Amino acid sequence: MRRTFRFILALFASLTAVRAQAPADPEATLRAIFTEALVRGRAYGELRTLVTTYPGRLAGSKALAGAVTWGEAALKRAGAETVYRQDVMVPHWERGAKESVTLLAGGAPQPLAAFALGGSVATPAGGIEAEVVEVKSLEEVAALGREQVAGKIVFFNRPMDPAIVRPGTAYSTGVGVRSRGPSAAARLGAVAVIVRSMTHALDDLPHTGGTNYAPDAPRIPAAAISTLAAERLGAALTAAKKSGGATVRVALTINSRWLPDAPSHNVIGEIRGTEFPEQIILVGGHLDSWDVTPGAHDNGSGIVQSIEVLRIFRALGLRPRHTLRCVLFTNEENGLRGSLAYAASVREKQERHVIAIETDNGGFQPRGFNLGSTQGDLHERAAARWAALFAPYGLNSFVKGTGGADVGPLLAQGIAVAGLTPDSQRYFDYHHTTADSIDKVHPRELHLGAGALAALVWLVDTQGL
Amino acid sequence: MRRTFRFILALFASLTAVRAQAPADPEATLRAIFTEALVRGRAYGELRTLVTTYPGRLAGSKALAGAVTWGEAALKRAGAETVYRQDVMVPHWERGAKESVTLLAGGAPQPLAAFALGGSVATPAGGIEAEVVEVKSLEEVAALGREQVAGKIVFFNRPMDPAIVRPGTAYSTGVGVRSRGPSAAARLGAVAVIVRSMTHALDDLPHTGGTNYAPDAPRIPAAAISTLAAERLGAALTAAKKSGGATVRVALTINSRWLPDAPSHNVIGEIRGTEFPEQIILVGGHLDSWDVTPGAHDNGSGIVQSIEVLRIFRALGLRPRHTLRCVLFTNEENGLRGSLAYAASVREKQERHVIAIETDNGGFQPRGFNLGSTQGDLHERAAARWAALFAPYGLNSFVKGTGGADVGPLLAQGIAVAGLTPDSQRYFDYHHTTADSIDKVHPRELHLGAGALAALVWLVDTQGL
Repeated sequence: MRRTFRFILALFASLTAVRAQAPADPEATLRAIFTEALVRGRAYGELRTLVTTYPGRLAGSKALAGAVTWGEAALKRAGAETVYRQDVMVPHWERGAKESVTLLAGGAPQPLAAFALGGSVATPAGGIEAEVVEVKSLEEVAALGREQVAGKIVFFNRPMDPAIVRPGTAYSTGVGVRSRGPSAAARLGAVAVIVRSMTHALDDLPHTGGTNYAPDAPRIPAAAISTLAAERLGAALTAAKKSGGATVRVALTINSRWLPDAPSHNVIGEIRGTEFPEQIILVGGHLDSWDVTPGAHDNGSGIVQSIEVLRIFRALGLRPRHTLRCVLFTNEENGLRGSLAYAASVREKQERHVIAIETDNGGFQPRGFNLGSTQGDLHERAAARWAALFAPYGLNSFVKGTGGADVGPLLAQGIAVAGLTPDSQRYFDYHHTTADSIDKVHPRELHLGAGALAALVWLVDTQGL
Repeated sequence: MRRTFRFILALFASLTAVRAQAPADPEATLRAIFTEALVRGRAYGELRTLVTTYPGRLAGSKALAGAVTWGEAALKRAGAETVYRQDVMVPHWERGAKESVTLLAGGAPQPLAAFALGGSVATPAGGIEAEVVEVKSLEEVAALGREQVAGKIVFFNRPMDPAIVRPGTAYSTGVGVRSRGPSAAARLGAVAVIVRSMTHALDDLPHTGGTNYAPDAPRIPAAAISTLAAERLGAALTAAKKSGGATVRVALTINSRWLPDAPSHNVIGEIRGTEFPEQIILVGGHLDSWDVTPGAHDNGSGIVQSIEVLRIFRALGLRPRHTLRCVLFTNEENGLRGSLAYAASVREKQERHVIAIETDNGGFQPRGFNLGSTQGDLHERAAARWAALFAPYGLNSFVKGTGGADVGPLLAQGIAVAGLTPDSQRYFDYHHTTADSIDKVHPRELHLGAGALAALVWLVDTQGL
């Protein structure tokens, strides 16, 4: 390209940018933001690439390393002025190729759809076979005591509570058996744990997810089985109890392994603030996913929405007054190391954050935000000032919250946080399964979420908190 | 059954009913209603039966007749005390077996995914072949004039506006070319009309839907093609224009037929009011569907939700003070005859309705209600009194509206109306297509909608409007 021509092009581009500058009127600007998101949105296309090219982005995996490189390029495509990595060492757990849970209740052995829980130790090479004892809760296993638990496989078979309206709340209420069940059972001499998958759906998809071994308990293997498999195993146990004396046994094989911590990275892209460049508005989510899943809703959707915020600002010629920083956190699923490293760096550098906004609740129709602050009820202030502006876009929920897992440590440092809250009835149908794929995400719902984030960022940037 | 035993059973049943009587405290009652809907809801099971046994419930069809019988039984299963039919004569249009739209642009003929529009006249037996002229709107075809339209097939190729947040609004804005396009083109001598399917999705599903012939225009055949087919046809026209002179032709065959009006029925189930039996609270939707679709969201979901309202009242032992009437309207899709017959009967019998509530916007996550009244702003009163009660269930939208198509004539008679407003981003992906099937409906979303309707009915019944 000749120099003169290049100069003319640059001049034209800068004039276009000025012309495209959205009006400062909030109503008109939000309309421009949502229109950009809905009509020219790129989040869905980026999501398709991310989750089909790099499924299974677990800490330590090649897929996550690939996603880091993809994330840098995606941030540049979106118009980030600066893109850099923050190094983080992450846990490295690998699922083995031979996982199986088999029901032995007389007749032919019945394979049950199962995944080892994330972090589970392996069984001996030949697997474990033992009698199964069924409980509903941590309290029930404690009540059984060592006599009825030692040498057995403990089966936590409590469905997520269907009466709880928000599945996320039902999940939080029920997930203790997955995270703490193995150690609770191991303290009483159990040889392994099986948990019913955390979902309202009744189907044959197993849902993995992290389990945490307590320091004071033996580490025993643990797996999740599908809800249909749980129904089957539960029925076999009931039948055995009725027949008096018969026992139900399960054979379990897990050949996962723990490896040394591996290098990974938070990926960060910025547009520098025009007035307060040292003050940061953060928007982000986690780039990693469980190993078995494309991770489209959890959390590819949050990643592409966060990146899209930068693109929308650039496309509309909106220059942020504060520095707009997009953070793709590593290792939320099984360590939160990316979040902790980021928060440590903020403290160390004494970086000032106006707000840290997270998106990690699925790419469904956005309903509003949760907001949290150590200085008063941010959600009430936000609702009073902005609810009418957001209403035309279906966003009318402003509730108290803690943003999300990745911004939690920032809230603990006194930084205001927010989290996008989409509809959630479908989320736990796919959560931590092979089915969390691109076809489960609706382009317009995803793009409305990106618009919602960009709108919140713009309002905070121009009006303060 | 012996008499004494029967007496004991009846006594037990009445004691149980008293015990099960939900508390009159609104917060507790709404909690009981939504819990019943979510935990023991039967709407999804009923929907599966309806849409898999009686898909294609178009006026005059055997499927609709079967659905009428099913509806009576379903109302009885739900606990309606009285179930009866209201006779209605309905239009009877039948799609033929041989529909096709074929693109002829040089090279091999390319079949385009298509459906005749509902109500379209047939082509001659051998089909129609003509040059295609593309327009975006009714205005554009008028501007072309007879010279450029006569003898041609007019192709309305305007995508639904993606910038409009609510797809229902984009649909209403864009659907004029489907309903009025054929007559507008025929007045200028067009021989047939093709419309781009009414959806934001870019896929190969054709969407049917009604077209209305004006009395002053020749009746010409009309079909909808999928959005992908529309893109293909549009690209062929652009290429032909660029190459200068080449024309694009389409061959169209439709062998539908109009038959004499057929008997059908509104299906009505009631629980008699304890205090004001002559005053009616109506909840309902339309039982018919387009011929090509299972009609799960449009409007099987509304049917099973309406019936579920009765079941929830019975299950909780809630005795309505006003008569609770569930109406399954016939023939909404291509005539509205069920609605008109019902409204005429109301006027004739001078029946008093407290409110008429419709559900016909899909079985997605409910967001709130539209409310309308000839006596002031009902939606504002409802929001002020009940928004806080509905908020825990994700219902926080109370907007002015007209209820829906079937209760429209009642609003015109001065009766207050309401309509359930669910999320709608996914609705027009399936609307009037073969894909509007049971797998597109989420049980919990459907059941939350039923709970929302039951809650609104209960609030109006106990607190008035």
